[in-house]
Amino acid sequence: MPHYTTETELRRFAVDVFRAMGMPDEDAGIAAGVLVWADLRAVSSHGVSRLPQYVKWAADSILNPRPAMRSERLSAGLLKVDADRASGAVAMERAISDLVPMVQEAGIGAAVIGRMTHSGALGYYTCKIAEQGFACIAINAGIPLIPYHGTRVASLGTNPISIAVPGRPSPVVFDMATSVVALGRLVQARKSGKPLEPGWAIDEDGAQTTDPEKAAMVLPLGGAKGSGLSLMIECLASLLACSPLLADSLEGTGEGRKHRQNAMLIAIDVARFLPVDEYESQVARLIGMLRMQPRARDMTEILVPGERGDRSMRDSRACGIEIQDRVRTELADVARQLSVPPLTTNEGRHRSTGGERRKTREQ
Amino acid sequence: MPHYTTETELRRFAVDVFRAMGMPDEDAGIAAGVLVWADLRAVSSHGVSRLPQYVKWAADSILNPRPAMRSERLSAGLLKVDADRASGAVAMERAISDLVPMVQEAGIGAAVIGRMTHSGALGYYTCKIAEQGFACIAINAGIPLIPYHGTRVASLGTNPISIAVPGRPSPVVFDMATSVVALGRLVQARKSGKPLEPGWAIDEDGAQTTDPEKAAMVLPLGGAKGSGLSLMIECLASLLACSPLLADSLEGTGEGRKHRQNAMLIAIDVARFLPVDEYESQVARLIGMLRMQPRARDMTEILVPGERGDRSMRDSRACGIEIQDRVRTELADVARQLSVPPLTTNEGRHRSTGGERRKTREQ
Repeated sequence: MPHYTTETELRRFAVDVFRAMGMPDEDAGIAAGVLVWADLRAVSSHGVSRLPQYVKWAADSILNPRPAMRSERLSAGLLKVDADRASGAVAMERAISDLVPMVQEAGIGAAVIGRMTHSGALGYYTCKIAEQGFACIAINAGIPLIPYHGTRVASLGTNPISIAVPGRPSPVVFDMATSVVALGRLVQARKSGKPLEPGWAIDEDGAQTTDPEKAAMVLPLGGAKGSGLSLMIECLASLLACSPLLADSLEGTGEGRKHRQNAMLIAIDVARFLPVDEYESQVARLIGMLRMQPRARDMTEILVPGERGDRSMRDSRACGIEIQDRVRTELADVARQLSVPPLTTNEGRHRSTGGERRKTREQ
Repeated sequence: MPHYTTETELRRFAVDVFRAMGMPDEDAGIAAGVLVWADLRAVSSHGVSRLPQYVKWAADSILNPRPAMRSERLSAGLLKVDADRASGAVAMERAISDLVPMVQEAGIGAAVIGRMTHSGALGYYTCKIAEQGFACIAINAGIPLIPYHGTRVASLGTNPISIAVPGRPSPVVFDMATSVVALGRLVQARKSGKPLEPGWAIDEDGAQTTDPEKAAMVLPLGGAKGSGLSLMIECLASLLACSPLLADSLEGTGEGRKHRQNAMLIAIDVARFLPVDEYESQVARLIGMLRMQPRARDMTEILVPGERGDRSMRDSRACGIEIQDRVRTELADVARQLSVPPLTTNEGRHRSTGGERRKTREQ
């Protein structure tokens, strides 16, 4: 029987964990927000399932709960943030709040964020920026986890790219890893015990495998294409931040292999080109036309980027957020370890929060 | 026996064709430069093989040889170019020359180029910008040629993305279509008569095919991923340019189906972050580490984006540029049609230009 919790309770728990890790209240709220957003959208690979890892990183001094971040304006349109190993969420939020006034002034701006830890779902940030009437491109560089095209060892990050634009009722949010699947899916498959799809991953010897326990690396999307895109993300985010992740890691120093991330956010003020509501109308018109196209065999509907997540979000808010058994067990351990009240969950979908849906059914 | 020509002769011929189409001398030189660059790099799908199409577009008033382009600065960092159906090369060059001083001032700048025709290889422009010490991201939106994920009709452009960064001896230039392969490869396969690889294309009924004559559309890269990325490129380049390509085309008006393209160029001044030579050293260090990684089975070397093209360019300059038979025939027709001197080619590699290589061999 699956277990469910509410948005409020999940946030409460995540905030408690981040505070217990030593983060200030405001930062704990920011870091919790990104994870809860992902869980609401049923992207549980980027949700609270990451908390045990974050706790370990804080204990190992990889994540700094009280960072001395430095944000420096390099020009009218360029911002550089040194995150001092902050929670990725905290570093990204700082970058966004410093970047937005620059974009309002110059029409465009880019922030390079160096030396942060895991940012969580990149789409969270691009969506947030798009809600303010900006088009946004975000890229994120991480340590090597997948093979660069032509190699058989971890030599490339799964470096995601997210693009979001204003839309109605909410932004259109595209978010993809440059690997065939996000590495989180591997972590998730290991937790759920479900086999991987063929072509997703290779084992330590470079042979393809569907066993999540044997899988060592996921492959780059489309071979040279995803591999090249991921490399360029490292060149943009990490090398401009003066925080090279791949080269440091491949040179094999202990420091070089430690978890850290860099990112770049580019925001463009739509209103400089046309009124935002006209832009949103054009986005809606385009999506409307796509939905009307003849469907491929076995396809029941045509989806646009972020649509599945938007639906899950509505559904989760109405009926609760599913927490997988293995995640629940790990979060219980975290709660004991940090002496915070455990996450309250209920069996079945409608007991805790399903009021709305049940009512509809009874009518 | 394959035929070869020289860079000088190929440029002469392309310039003559563009002039005969009615373009001013300077514009003819610009438009020829992009095609010759692609042929030098052995990306013949984006080279002079496109000339017959360009000639037809000019005759059909799709390509305007004497456009009244308007370039408007919207803010410190934003430029909008209305290309008035110009040659894509001419529009992109205009955007670059207007954008560069803005980037020098604001540290970052973006140009949106609307209503141009085929730009040719996008990597040509990002490479050119990177040679000036900037990091560059370029995207290009075109009319529907491939199926949006979930559909079985042409409802999405093959919209490429190119990213280039300064490097030694030349920039690292990544350039990919959001389709499994560039549509040019389909055109090229039709010209060469070679079968397509499985998984590249579908026929009119939506069934997969390897027959280049039956192939109607190439598929998006990685299904929803390439499909979503391509859609976002339309949202950025076309909707900001107020030149919607997909929606206009899918609504099925005659005007909407006509060839045209929009693009966006984003340039970032590397020197605001660190000295360009230090940046280039970091790029070289990263590439050096990648080359040293253990290779996957059947891989003889590890390549970085643009490397194959750089090699072909050196080789073409030393030994001549191959012109496929079918392209040669089509170019002869174009020459007759426009009364320009035909392209001179020679059989075999070393007769026309192969002096350097032959000398090396004889020593």
